[in-house]
Amino acid sequence: MYTLVVDCMGSDNGPKVIVEGIKIFLSKHKDVKIIAVGREEELQDLKGINVEIVDARDIVPMECGALEVMRMRKSSLMVSLDLMKDNHYDAVVSAGSTGGFLSAATVKLKLVPGIDRAALISPFPTAKKGKKAVVLDIGANNENTPEQLVQFAQMGKIYSNKVMKVEHPSVYLLSNGAEDEKGSPEVKKAHQMLREMNFEGFKGNIEGRDALNGECDVIVTGGFAGNVFLKATEGIASIMKNMIKKAFYRNPLTMIGYLFSKKGFDEMSATMDYKSTGGAMLLGVNGVVVKAHGSSDGYSFSCALEVAYNMVVVDVVKLLKQGVGQVE
Amino acid sequence: MYTLVVDCMGSDNGPKVIVEGIKIFLSKHKDVKIIAVGREEELQDLKGINVEIVDARDIVPMECGALEVMRMRKSSLMVSLDLMKDNHYDAVVSAGSTGGFLSAATVKLKLVPGIDRAALISPFPTAKKGKKAVVLDIGANNENTPEQLVQFAQMGKIYSNKVMKVEHPSVYLLSNGAEDEKGSPEVKKAHQMLREMNFEGFKGNIEGRDALNGECDVIVTGGFAGNVFLKATEGIASIMKNMIKKAFYRNPLTMIGYLFSKKGFDEMSATMDYKSTGGAMLLGVNGVVVKAHGSSDGYSFSCALEVAYNMVVVDVVKLLKQGVGQVE
Repeated sequence: MYTLVVDCMGSDNGPKVIVEGIKIFLSKHKDVKIIAVGREEELQDLKGINVEIVDARDIVPMECGALEVMRMRKSSLMVSLDLMKDNHYDAVVSAGSTGGFLSAATVKLKLVPGIDRAALISPFPTAKKGKKAVVLDIGANNENTPEQLVQFAQMGKIYSNKVMKVEHPSVYLLSNGAEDEKGSPEVKKAHQMLREMNFEGFKGNIEGRDALNGECDVIVTGGFAGNVFLKATEGIASIMKNMIKKAFYRNPLTMIGYLFSKKGFDEMSATMDYKSTGGAMLLGVNGVVVKAHGSSDGYSFSCALEVAYNMVVVDVVKLLKQGVGQVE
Repeated sequence: MYTLVVDCMGSDNGPKVIVEGIKIFLSKHKDVKIIAVGREEELQDLKGINVEIVDARDIVPMECGALEVMRMRKSSLMVSLDLMKDNHYDAVVSAGSTGGFLSAATVKLKLVPGIDRAALISPFPTAKKGKKAVVLDIGANNENTPEQLVQFAQMGKIYSNKVMKVEHPSVYLLSNGAEDEKGSPEVKKAHQMLREMNFEGFKGNIEGRDALNGECDVIVTGGFAGNVFLKATEGIASIMKNMIKKAFYRNPLTMIGYLFSKKGFDEMSATMDYKSTGGAMLLGVNGVVVKAHGSSDGYSFSCALEVAYNMVVVDVVKLLKQGVGQVE
């Protein structure tokens, strides 16, 4: 039996969607117990299923910084992390404030020995149907050393292999050119280090344009550029989705056009849907930590729980302890 | 009369498209003389119009690095830059190797006093119909200091105001969060410097997701993250365009759908079309330098010439000399 702790209060859409997500998830998994943390009276719908409700009255506001979060000891977020730490539960999932959740999780759970910085990893849609690429770090850090980039490569490869089930993951460094000598000073040095250690699966640099062409399994980047990459991708996808909508809503004729081509566009939406990926995972701490989208609905929160579950089943943390950190 | 120098040999599509671009451009501008540099026999179609042909036999290969380019003294690219420098012509335009062209242009033409690094600037489509935002640096540099970012803000604002004709440009720093304290160490420091100097129009940080929402006129970034931003944007736009094509080509019914909604999608394509922006401009050197897309067709090369022309008419270089460089 696995035990997952869920912060039920952080979501933009309130605890209702979280409750719904837990129910969807538990209907598929009989081997999981959920510890649901939040205002008891709002979690009553979880009674009668495999859930233990833990009352926590305070809610961390979305804009809350790391230090403020740490001070909110009675918040659903901090109580969740305390429960996780004290009882060695398997995973913690929250849709709350990214910065606050990640810093507090790192402080509470501590880093895996040999890892200097935790990294946020998330799957991205690619040009190849059904294929996702994972990118890390997409924003846990403001700056990273070459050594940290090498550790990210190690963690990303383990994630791709064990959680995404890619047999031989191809690993690339995100850079401003595909040539070996291109990159920021940190990327150049990391490139050199990965070459010197004959890092299995390392294929060299890749540009942002080609990163999602379907060839890459793991894309390694510092947190600043990774965050820019993530958000540029989301931004342009959202602009284009709106344009598609407008193109179809011009007049009755174009709306007929939509009816005829709806199926193809539904498929496209499914591919581009960041919600189905569940969120982002914090790799490198002692425990499975999943940050669900703040705007999650019930379905996407259940996807975040699925990811946490998959990471627990393959015991990612143990794999990281074994496989990462031999970088000098 | 203005004089524009054109490297006719660098394009992926050969000199034919360049010749076509020059003809389109000259048909609209009677006050411009073009110096066309390249293999004479391939430029015969330019005879009889306002063009002086200068023979240059060598062609710089696309993958050529900066040092190699400098050594190819008889190449169309180097001859173009020499002509520009020796005769103080108004602008130079090339569709050739980006790295080689930019480094050679910087070495030959030298930086404007007070500017530490040249920056590549380019207009991006936004969510607002007809509105473009300029982003700099999109890849001339691998790393930048806070002082250089402030200079980029100054140059970007002048470009937006004088070339894009935006009356009061809003200037943002690209960061991993909109809050003032977010960013890489360089971005944080640049933010502080812009605040302290009461930089007119500076609105703070912006995330990659919102950068193209139509609110920003100038987006300032270091060259590494800027290049990642540019290429992530291009990459996802191209993936989505292919998906749209596939959605319509599924079967005869969806193709009927396309016929009905074609007009809306043509409008969308026009908005997302990077070709109509002409290319990228190198700001900060003594002269107008425009890098056209390597894959330019005649029309898009004529757009690159238009941009160079606009920059010459408002005398961007003089404006930069007056308005930039008071950063300590």
